[in-house]
Amino acid sequence: MAAPISFLSDFGRVDEFVGVVHGVIARIAPEVRVIDVGHDFPRGEVRIAALALLRAIQYLPQGVALAVVDPGVGTERRPIAVRTEWGHFVGPDNGLLAPAVAMVGGADRIVSIDNPELRIPSAGATFQGRDLFAPAAAVLASGEAGIDDLGPEIVDGSFMPLMVPLAERLEDRVLGEVLWVDHFGNVSTNLGPDDLVDLGLKPGDDVSVAVGVTEHRVPWAAAYGDVDPGKLLLHVDSSGQVAVAARGGRADERLGVGPHVSVTFRRPRGGNRITVQGVSPAV
Amino acid sequence: MAAPISFLSDFGRVDEFVGVVHGVIARIAPEVRVIDVGHDFPRGEVRIAALALLRAIQYLPQGVALAVVDPGVGTERRPIAVRTEWGHFVGPDNGLLAPAVAMVGGADRIVSIDNPELRIPSAGATFQGRDLFAPAAAVLASGEAGIDDLGPEIVDGSFMPLMVPLAERLEDRVLGEVLWVDHFGNVSTNLGPDDLVDLGLKPGDDVSVAVGVTEHRVPWAAAYGDVDPGKLLLHVDSSGQVAVAARGGRADERLGVGPHVSVTFRRPRGGNRITVQGVSPAV
Amino acid sequence: MAAPISFLSDFGRVDEFVGVVHGVIARIAPEVRVIDVGHDFPRGEVRIAALALLRAIQYLPQGVALAVVDPGVGTERRPIAVRTEWGHFVGPDNGLLAPAVAMVGGADRIVSIDNPELRIPSAGATFQGRDLFAPAAAVLASGEAGIDDLGPEIVDGSFMPLMVPLAERLEDRVLGEVLWVDHFGNVSTNLGPDDLVDLGLKPGDDVSVAVGVTEHRVPWAAAYGDVDPGKLLLHVDSSGQVAVAARGGRADERLGVGPHVSVTFRRPRGGNRITVQGVSPAV
Repeated sequence: MAAPISFLSDFGRVDEFVGVVHGVIARIAPEVRVIDVGHDFPRGEVRIAALALLRAIQYLPQGVALAVVDPGVGTERRPIAVRTEWGHFVGPDNGLLAPAVAMVGGADRIVSIDNPELRIPSAGATFQGRDLFAPAAAVLASGEAGIDDLGPEIVDGSFMPLMVPLAERLEDRVLGEVLWVDHFGNVSTNLGPDDLVDLGLKPGDDVSVAVGVTEHRVPWAAAYGDVDPGKLLLHVDSSGQVAVAARGGRADERLGVGPHVSVTFRRPRGGNRITVQGVSPAV
Repeated sequence: MAAPISFLSDFGRVDEFVGVVHGVIARIAPEVRVIDVGHDFPRGEVRIAALALLRAIQYLPQGVALAVVDPGVGTERRPIAVRTEWGHFVGPDNGLLAPAVAMVGGADRIVSIDNPELRIPSAGATFQGRDLFAPAAAVLASGEAGIDDLGPEIVDGSFMPLMVPLAERLEDRVLGEVLWVDHFGNVSTNLGPDDLVDLGLKPGDDVSVAVGVTEHRVPWAAAYGDVDPGKLLLHVDSSGQVAVAARGGRADERLGVGPHVSVTFRRPRGGNRITVQGVSPAV
Repeated sequence: MAAPISFLSDFGRVDEFVGVVHGVIARIAPEVRVIDVGHDFPRGEVRIAALALLRAIQYLPQGVALAVVDPGVGTERRPIAVRTEWGHFVGPDNGLLAPAVAMVGGADRIVSIDNPELRIPSAGATFQGRDLFAPAAAVLASGEAGIDDLGPEIVDGSFMPLMVPLAERLEDRVLGEVLWVDHFGNVSTNLGPDDLVDLGLKPGDDVSVAVGVTEHRVPWAAAYGDVDPGKLLLHVDSSGQVAVAARGGRADERLGVGPHVSVTFRRPRGGNRITVQGVSPAV
């Protein structure tokens, strides 16, 4: 019984890379369906792609997750396969798989992929997505091989974690960081709603959102429609994180932020009696 | 018997959004095939995406059209499903579906999607493509549910139309508008060939195409090969609209236009005896 | 027995073009799977897409290759189908198919596609990918038609070759050309490793890579990990060509090159005793 493969990479679309990986899978396992989770993640940015896989995993059909964002290709980092309750994960051992594996309950078994029979011979050594990871995913998805056919178990049972900064709770504020800016300019952070609740805030309140010395007073809204067009709002986004959005606009441009930028959240000075939406440096 | 889903959105490709919708459909209805009509339509530009769906619909396999360009997500606009002779349409009630529905013969039944059992629970409310529209499309495509299982009929039988400006016929000219500039720079307008015929023009004639005060004298050609490389031509494009193209170049840059820009068409002054291709402000 | 279609074009993703071709195929041959090899090749650049198809073909499942990069649409160039041991190729007769056809053993039969029954009637004549090539690919893939049902054999048995410049061997150097810069900035040339071996070079040696008057001394490495982060390396890339890469960076920007730019390779003056990586104009 064939399982689907969900495929994520930073290969981009300007070349034939993504299509060739589909081709390799189709030659080995013609009955296996491949879902493209995304291929335009920034080149070599493991964290951004790892968080995307984390957000996506619970919505993907159980089977094989093939993820290749691999700035260390051609170095000592190991190609691995991981067995979980959700299914198998295949990719480089650089933290890319770790958050999604943890989300679905953790690794049951991890192997280093080194079976030369599964590797497509190639003049060069740089396209492991095609020559090594795709064949491994294909045989796992088709059921032609089990994880132990790919290579030896990594006996310490560990693999590379992903370092994601935790939001830091101080006396009267939470120091957070932008994890992700999406296609629409929405700014997702490493805060959960509990971080705001711990500050005594609740939906409907205004929240002070500071980037550098600029402070924005932003209402904690349930929906975009709760603010006027063009205004900033704070909400719990579709992945459960505290995010800042602008109705009909780009919050990243309004805040002047991108991934890795620090953002501080706190109760507005003067309480929540006066709602001044948007930029309000004098609050 | 499963029907295919044709999926169109403005989700872009830099995130995992498109892949997650595929995943949701595959979890609910593994046997359903999904065709990506396009996901890079400009953010929130309902008209551009609606016209793309209109052009595409007759070429898509009968089944379910899932279209999500939804600048009003999180406001009062309704999520709807529409039954037609072609199949089902699923999307927001903001005009996006209207032209394609009309093209295939109109709506047979329209419902507001509000069955909570079909909705995927989520921390946030902003990804209705994933949480609401994808499940609705999946159950319609798989045959697991009929349209009446999704929610109550919209009893006035109406839904939001799309406002598309009509070409305006004056004494000696037609005032048109650019509807679409494609990947190759071809400029498609809201004129049909009849609008030019009504001016006494026929294929082979030169046509005066004016943008602002700049007038171009452009031959009405049957094929790109009818003009020299680099020259502008006017033709009936692959969607049946009057369009301006440049052989081997970008007509949008030559004319200096984009969507929503006004263009005036008329017979060239001095008749069709002299063919001056390209820019000819002194005609 | 349905065969898969591998589909490559320069249609881009901002319109519905790619989706409509998928739709046409699904209407004619619902059981046929379509693999997208890539659609973002530069507009009308036949050589770049032809080389991509060449690199991809051995990894694609046997069946039908549908390739449409067609700057001559609407001129006299013929639409063709080619039968080979790999399967069928469908596209314009402009050199696009030639390298891949040669790679899989050459053409067994070539026909001009002109059967009007297979053509989708259209108001315009410019979307042959939808109206002519997609139906031809679909009937070949489904087995509904053989190649001779598409149109008459091209009796001289020939079709348009692709002109690719050969690397030119001089006394002490090889004059090459950049064929391709990939998504990661890797610079692939028209040299094979034998061209370097003929110069007395071997893996591990430094190679002089000159663009204009600027000379770079670059180690011939087996893997990215063999050089320090940020450094240039020369290697045999995943398609078997001599390429220049930068570990963790973009070699195209470092060298200042793009497709069609000339590059000269030779043994470094002063031999291989001193390794000066990166820019070293004074060597």
